Amino acid sequence: MPAISPVTAAAVQFDPQVGLENKDGNVRRSIELINEAADRGATLVVLPELAGTGYGFACREEAYAHAEPVPDGPTTRAWAALARERGLHIVGGVAERDGVRLFDTAVLVGPDGVIGTYRKTHLWNREKLYFEPGDLGFPVFHTRIGRIGLLICWDIWFPEVARLLAVQGADVICSVNNWVWTPPPLFDEAGRCMAAYLTMTASHVNNVPIVAANRVGEERGGRFLGCSLITGTGGWPIGSVAPAEGETTVYADLDLAASRSAPIWNDLNDLVRDRRTDLYDPLLGYRGGDAFPR
Amino acid sequence: MPAISPVTAAAVQFDPQVGLENKDGNVRRSIELINEAADRGATLVVLPELAGTGYGFACREEAYAHAEPVPDGPTTRAWAALARERGLHIVGGVAERDGVRLFDTAVLVGPDGVIGTYRKTHLWNREKLYFEPGDLGFPVFHTRIGRIGLLICWDIWFPEVARLLAVQGADVICSVNNWVWTPPPLFDEAGRCMAAYLTMTASHVNNVPIVAANRVGEERGGRFLGCSLITGTGGWPIGSVAPAEGETTVYADLDLAASRSAPIWNDLNDLVRDRRTDLYDPLLGYRGGDAFPR
Repeated sequence: MPAISPVTAAAVQFDPQVGLENKDGNVRRSIELINEAADRGATLVVLPELAGTGYGFACREEAYAHAEPVPDGPTTRAWAALARERGLHIVGGVAERDGVRLFDTAVLVGPDGVIGTYRKTHLWNREKLYFEPGDLGFPVFHTRIGRIGLLICWDIWFPEVARLLAVQGADVICSVNNWVWTPPPLFDEAGRCMAAYLTMTASHVNNVPIVAANRVGEERGGRFLGCSLITGTGGWPIGSVAPAEGETTVYADLDLAASRSAPIWNDLNDLVRDRRTDLYDPLLGYRGGDAFPR
Repeated sequence: MPAISPVTAAAVQFDPQVGLENKDGNVRRSIELINEAADRGATLVVLPELAGTGYGFACREEAYAHAEPVPDGPTTRAWAALARERGLHIVGGVAERDGVRLFDTAVLVGPDGVIGTYRKTHLWNREKLYFEPGDLGFPVFHTRIGRIGLLICWDIWFPEVARLLAVQGADVICSVNNWVWTPPPLFDEAGRCMAAYLTMTASHVNNVPIVAANRVGEERGGRFLGCSLITGTGGWPIGSVAPAEGETTVYADLDLAASRSAPIWNDLNDLVRDRRTDLYDPLLGYRGGDAFPR
């Protein structure tokens, strides 16, 4: 079958640095890299989490100073203008300020402007000291090219998230990340970190491509793991998984309609039909009885 | 901290063959291999799915002829006698007959006799033509050595299953398998199949070791993938993942109490506490509105 909704996806791995003096430079660098990806044919470009600000805020006040409104802030406006100019869909992470509340947010912009935002639900480490947990659920956005679901970093440690995006019909999941430490080894003999495997298996069990961009570099003692990758509906990486260090962009040609076909397992299985939602009580273990929450 | 509940786990990868004429030999071979594992110090031994019967039934009548009652059938009795004699816990797959209904079942036996059974919930391919979907939920069994959860093969394609076992307090998950074809490649450059990654990530996100035994060999045109492995709470394999071919047993020393500690991510995260069960509606996507079931 020819591609019904062909896109060339790009996962942009780069090294934004925290500090107000760096913010404009981070956004400029993201624009350079998006333009490079567009020059190479990309039509869907995914940036890391907090791509405009860097990650390692020292205190809430510093996070507050870096944050900006969404969609009416400079970072979203810059990406939206570029998306319009180049005919792209772009996903990237922004420190969002809404009144006095802060969110770790991903924005999706397209050729016609801002499409939607997702606020990170599962906060990692000191993010809990600066940001509120997302209050927008797990939305799937309709776009010209198909339905796009968003998730952010630690979200993928909760397999419920990709599942919820997939059952809402996401044709692709854009995963914006600042992957850091996990229980060792950080990388296995294949050069992949556990987050790469979480991406692969979430993609595989949900029959949905995932475009996962992570940052690299160090910042105030924290090290980021790279390993950006793009998976096909089968879950395997298309092309290489990015190395742990160095700015690089991973490309893959995807057909966003492919996720709408049941995976060709056999004539009796379908991952979605086979689910037993009647048995998946998310509260199990919190109700006593013969259950033992740790 | 010294091990509170030390066990040496063994995942026995072997090659049972379907056919009534082979059934006694399959069980005898399983007993030889369990004894070998016990001689090498194993105290928790996991066998593949349908270890006593082989897998590739040609028709329901053949499946029915291979099946036996549980726990009062010869295979469970043989394993229970051995568990008593050697002071072991053993998990293995049995074709179960209950009246006229058939189940693809895992039995757990220990030094004091039969502890419990689990009936496979998510049936794969032609299993749907012979077996009923399991009707026992996802039980976690109390044993001398800790709490043991069971799952069978295609179950792990549904991340809900390991999650449900973990939130009920499973200290270890025993995974009995007849892993076969998945969307290619069957194996990656690291020599691992996707089922190995599903095992690793299920283990990682739930902070629970998984002892996964798969069979090998060919049977009536079907090929099995080996790749038996044992993961620690961090999700990484302990020692080697078994090769795709050849009988072999994978060993690992586990502390079954380790899963009761939160993983040492940092002082603000805990995988269980961080779950947002209020947002994990398993029926999402089946309710209309802005949802698009495929």
